[in-house]
Amino acid sequence: EPAASLARRCHHRSTAMLDVPFLPFCAFLGTLGLLCVAMVGTWCQHWRGGFSLDGSSRTFNWHPVLMVTGLVVLYGAAALVYRIPNTWSGPKLPWKLLHGSLALGAFILTVLGLAAVFCFHNSQGTPNMYSLHSWMGLGTVLLFSCQWAAGFGAFLLPWAPTWIRALYKPIHVFFGSTILMLSVASCVSGINEKLFFSLKNGTMQYKLLPAEAVFANTLGLLILIFGVLVVAALARPSWKRPDSDSPDSRQVQDALAG
Amino acid sequence: EPAASLARRCHHRSTAMLDVPFLPFCAFLGTLGLLCVAMVGTWCQHWRGGFSLDGSSRTFNWHPVLMVTGLVVLYGAAALVYRIPNTWSGPKLPWKLLHGSLALGAFILTVLGLAAVFCFHNSQGTPNMYSLHSWMGLGTVLLFSCQWAAGFGAFLLPWAPTWIRALYKPIHVFFGSTILMLSVASCVSGINEKLFFSLKNGTMQYKLLPAEAVFANTLGLLILIFGVLVVAALARPSWKRPDSDSPDSRQVQDALAG
Repeated sequence: EPAASLARRCHHRSTAMLDVPFLPFCAFLGTLGLLCVAMVGTWCQHWRGGFSLDGSSRTFNWHPVLMVTGLVVLYGAAALVYRIPNTWSGPKLPWKLLHGSLALGAFILTVLGLAAVFCFHNSQGTPNMYSLHSWMGLGTVLLFSCQWAAGFGAFLLPWAPTWIRALYKPIHVFFGSTILMLSVASCVSGINEKLFFSLKNGTMQYKLLPAEAVFANTLGLLILIFGVLVVAALARPSWKRPDSDSPDSRQVQDALAG
Repeated sequence: EPAASLARRCHHRSTAMLDVPFLPFCAFLGTLGLLCVAMVGTWCQHWRGGFSLDGSSRTFNWHPVLMVTGLVVLYGAAALVYRIPNTWSGPKLPWKLLHGSLALGAFILTVLGLAAVFCFHNSQGTPNMYSLHSWMGLGTVLLFSCQWAAGFGAFLLPWAPTWIRALYKPIHVFFGSTILMLSVASCVSGINEKLFFSLKNGTMQYKLLPAEAVFANTLGLLILIFGVLVVAALARPSWKRPDSDSPDSRQVQDALAG
């Protein structure tokens, strides 16, 4: 069938046109992540009064900085470890330790970020956990803690039997991307909420779009783009471990053979 | 190698344990989607004064209802069409028409939803397009319009050459899931923002968590769960067309063979 073979050839050529190498893409993602961290720090420092531990809004300012740094950027770095081609050969344990340590670092920053907002609310007499942002955000952190503990138990401790690891791995992979999407959605709703709280009087109203609003809205969009690109990189089949025994690749192989 | 073969057998058994059939999962998703539509309607009718076309907040109320119905639920239904096993054999054109029509219906509801909020703002003298919610939401709708037009041009009109279709298909698939994630994040930030606007006086403050706040927060979480489950269903390899010529499956096959 020359038509089918032509189509296949065309298809392979066009797939090759879309092929981006992982490491330059990763460098771009790293730059974008650092830009997000720099921008959230600048927002809090320049427009929101900087940082302190006195229970004032300057304590609150640690919340967005720690959440964007931990639950988005460092979390994204942890998630991408197994996409580095160097991890595909040789012993897997060092890479597992790197993945687990980056995720633990992200988790510690996240917990400190939660502590900052609870401390601020308590010292101001504001109730905790009423907004949709807080429900979604705390749900995301709880999922993340389960994900870390289950990953540690199943993949780093030596006692889990093979069938448990095989059963849990696709679940761990699925929640890895899901938690990042939820983190990004939490960040966006939090930035939106904070701007409505902070910009409400006189010429500084949010609806008049002062410089701070443009800056923080842009930060929100960059966080969204970062999250979407990390999830896309995680999902890209050609960037996964080729010797992977993940059900994902196996199911496709079975489906193509069957 | 008996160990490897044992591991593979264990792996297949545990993969089979995770295998959910598509149609019951789809019925569950449909129920969840209808629940979201019913809840957003109930919220606007019962707590926010119902619906009208007079430019008041009763005109605004069309905005959440049309966005959740169009950009989340109907969009999700359109995205899942090719996962129905019946679409995998026989002529593809009727299913393309169904996919395109559902997406067009979702797009029309979305544009009406935008019209509702612009009409409300204009009649109240409120500026448009200042919040992060509005930036992200309008960006999502613009991406959706490009997605629909490019899909129509490449896959429904007969003139696109094979190499264009092959080049564009993975892009269309990627943006299909991405637009849904952005829609869901837009809905969540919109519900959060609306509750801060509406619940601000006396005993009805958002921070006191009245019944309306619990109801709308729950709606936000259900929309999140709906979006995550649709994206997961789209990504699941065993639910994709087995004869698919998508680069996704081909790349995995190549990687496994190579």
